[in-house]
Amino acid sequence: MAHLLSASCSLKLSPREKISFKHCNLGSTKFTPSFTLQCSKSSFKRFVHQGKNPQRLNLVHATAVPLNQEMKAQSGTGSLENTENASGRRRVMVIGGDGYCGWATALHLSNKNYDVAIVDNLVRRLFDHQLGLDSLTPIASIHNRIRRWKALTGKTIELFIGDICDFEFLAETFKSFKPNAVVHFGEQRSAPYSMIDRSRAVFTQHNNVIGTLNVLFAIKEFGEECHLVKLGTMGEYGTPNIDIEEGYITVTHNGRTDTLPYPKQAGSFYHLSKVHDSHNIAFTCKAWGIRATDLNQGVVYGVRTDETALHEELCNRFDYDAVFGTVLNRFCVQAAVGHPLTVYGKGGQTRGYLDIRDTVQCVELAIANPAHRGEFRVFNQFTEQFSVRDLAALVTKAGEKLGLKVETISVPNPRVEAEEHYYNAKHTKLIELGLKPHFLSDSLLDSLLNFAVQYRDRVDTKQIMPSVSWKRIGVKPLTVKA
Amino acid sequence: MAHLLSASCSLKLSPREKISFKHCNLGSTKFTPSFTLQCSKSSFKRFVHQGKNPQRLNLVHATAVPLNQEMKAQSGTGSLENTENASGRRRVMVIGGDGYCGWATALHLSNKNYDVAIVDNLVRRLFDHQLGLDSLTPIASIHNRIRRWKALTGKTIELFIGDICDFEFLAETFKSFKPNAVVHFGEQRSAPYSMIDRSRAVFTQHNNVIGTLNVLFAIKEFGEECHLVKLGTMGEYGTPNIDIEEGYITVTHNGRTDTLPYPKQAGSFYHLSKVHDSHNIAFTCKAWGIRATDLNQGVVYGVRTDETALHEELCNRFDYDAVFGTVLNRFCVQAAVGHPLTVYGKGGQTRGYLDIRDTVQCVELAIANPAHRGEFRVFNQFTEQFSVRDLAALVTKAGEKLGLKVETISVPNPRVEAEEHYYNAKHTKLIELGLKPHFLSDSLLDSLLNFAVQYRDRVDTKQIMPSVSWKRIGVKPLTVKA
Repeated sequence: MAHLLSASCSLKLSPREKISFKHCNLGSTKFTPSFTLQCSKSSFKRFVHQGKNPQRLNLVHATAVPLNQEMKAQSGTGSLENTENASGRRRVMVIGGDGYCGWATALHLSNKNYDVAIVDNLVRRLFDHQLGLDSLTPIASIHNRIRRWKALTGKTIELFIGDICDFEFLAETFKSFKPNAVVHFGEQRSAPYSMIDRSRAVFTQHNNVIGTLNVLFAIKEFGEECHLVKLGTMGEYGTPNIDIEEGYITVTHNGRTDTLPYPKQAGSFYHLSKVHDSHNIAFTCKAWGIRATDLNQGVVYGVRTDETALHEELCNRFDYDAVFGTVLNRFCVQAAVGHPLTVYGKGGQTRGYLDIRDTVQCVELAIANPAHRGEFRVFNQFTEQFSVRDLAALVTKAGEKLGLKVETISVPNPRVEAEEHYYNAKHTKLIELGLKPHFLSDSLLDSLLNFAVQYRDRVDTKQIMPSVSWKRIGVKPLTVKA
Repeated sequence: MAHLLSASCSLKLSPREKISFKHCNLGSTKFTPSFTLQCSKSSFKRFVHQGKNPQRLNLVHATAVPLNQEMKAQSGTGSLENTENASGRRRVMVIGGDGYCGWATALHLSNKNYDVAIVDNLVRRLFDHQLGLDSLTPIASIHNRIRRWKALTGKTIELFIGDICDFEFLAETFKSFKPNAVVHFGEQRSAPYSMIDRSRAVFTQHNNVIGTLNVLFAIKEFGEECHLVKLGTMGEYGTPNIDIEEGYITVTHNGRTDTLPYPKQAGSFYHLSKVHDSHNIAFTCKAWGIRATDLNQGVVYGVRTDETALHEELCNRFDYDAVFGTVLNRFCVQAAVGHPLTVYGKGGQTRGYLDIRDTVQCVELAIANPAHRGEFRVFNQFTEQFSVRDLAALVTKAGEKLGLKVETISVPNPRVEAEEHYYNAKHTKLIELGLKPHFLSDSLLDSLLNFAVQYRDRVDTKQIMPSVSWKRIGVKPLTVKA
């Protein structure tokens, strides 16, 4: 894991950092009313975290804004935004900024001197509570994460807690933050979660489709120049028997030619929700002139980025369970605890993969090179292809090097998918924009395995085997056992 | 209109018909409790209409079930269903059976000796109230429609009033009616309605997508052999520069070949909702073995079918307004009231069209020839292609023959669409199943124009010009003026 840890050297603390020792001893009854004046028309809540003495953090009420912000809030003119606009920095709203990819991205963009706001309803944490799951890594609250980031770097990340399906809330965030770009991770992002039962299938499609519709309307109404960077998934394409292109395919048929949206064959209600989003976004680009980039992301692995490695309170989540864990992360944890690697079916399922350090890099590249007005641009966001069998072999080899005894078992595939198939997906557009991939290497696998070994006492082995069946999904809410 | 009226001769009254003269004088307090025993777990309401003396209809409470049905309901064994299953007749649930296509289809299937149930929340009637619109033709309540049908033919159409987005209701309808086929018209079906404002866009996608998801779950759970016949739209395809195939296209790309879902480029939030449905249904066919036929229907015109022509209480709705009216119907009404035909933009917009008598024929053909388990079958359901300009010319010619002075104006196109484009859509599969098209003819146009003239005093000319703009759609609910 050495190269991951050393990566933190690239981050420099801002010379502007001021650590405040002001002790707010629950003056929230004083602060809160002045703040709610600003948001009296909705459930909108805005948190601006400034540098605090880490030792005093537990005394700071999360909803309190510092006195200087209170004055600005009272003025109701968005003076903070004007100040920051004057800085010439671009303003990026990261929806879903408390999640696995979102948190890493928010920090990366803040580190790269974008003005960042996180919009999140924190429902991902609720899913863990409800399903009895937990991140391998202990993760701090979003409030403490943002305070810690400020304390370490002097950089402010604004926080808007709320649900983008609530348009009144979303509208207030847009009017307040005035983003130049919106990075939209704010969706239920697990295929198994969407296949647990009817209510979660419906939740996933409603939440993802309506949330994204609201984002599109907010951009049209409050920031028509704003660039939407939307996280799609490679899973939208399915596994066609021809090469997968980046969003579009040129077809010659009966002597005529056209370039059309690449056909979609998604394999879960989650993946389908992203297909629906793609169609909705493409329409608004054409009808309203929205500028949008759809990042059809592969399977993400890894946990540390330059920024999250800075402090344990910045640590990212690491899901190893069968609902939210991605396959390579899961295999590393399985190897660390001596559980056989769980290959679903034949293991010939081939997908695109990328390191989370490339996720954050890709998003930044998309923001730095925005789509044109009316353009619906699609990038396939991954760096390498592997089959599940390939990954199991790589983890087995890396584990043995570390003295771990790694076995692999084939378990009945809980999904409905081809287990042997052609797969060749193009992924050149982000490279052309400057992506420098972190390919899956022995050293990265060593790091991930060591990381999993470090936290293996936190592993709940009951969460490893797949519990959600594509075919057995029913209409009744699943009862979660203790 | 002669040939439409004469068509009624093909319908024979059932010899089983018994006209009841029982006077129920609001004995509903007696009937209702025994009935609600059956549906105490949900908001489910079931209405079974038996032959009543038409003169007494106003005294029959809509929620009352006849005594013999009351006994069956109490037994809780679905004995009605067993009886009717024993008849060997196939049971078809028509969701949205109170609407333009749904009502005509329900009657047609009942006439063809299917056992029919209508499931409808009647929200289409609410839209008219809210937007200040009305059908050109006076239409009876669904209760009176069904009673009249029973009185005329002896055929029972069951009625389930409720919302398919309420799964508990939908589940009860499935458990009670046990359909062999479900014809699903139960969606918000107007593109302009979906583009009025944000809340109606969201309503359209939520209502259509979640309603259809619920239907799929109900089939999986309660009737896995049941054949879903889903109304899609030709608008899902948009206007590609290559031939439109029926649902799938075989693509050779970089030396490899696959047959893939035909790419979709829908042009409104309504059309997009159908695209989303298509993807969701295709997935469940693969994952669960659902059998489904997606009828990508063109623009429907006409009003009378053999069955709706039988009695004024069976008359179908005829929308001429700019929100719900389809273009040929609108042009006929415009010609009848001396309003210029409103061609949007250049008028080169070309689409597939069909007579409503072919809609009902196509649905019956799909039911009679069901898809296989796991098959997602797509038929393009139209009979002829026309441009808007073509239609205006045809109506002008037909109008002049009737002594109407018909003018055409080009109005700014409220939609975002190509106004001149290639269009060649295949539509052979329903012909292969036996469809005998009613092509648009001079006599049909004469009939439609005469029909419009007959009702022209009911026309509200304020509803003719387009009032909904694709580009001006906003986030605030549209205020409807009186």
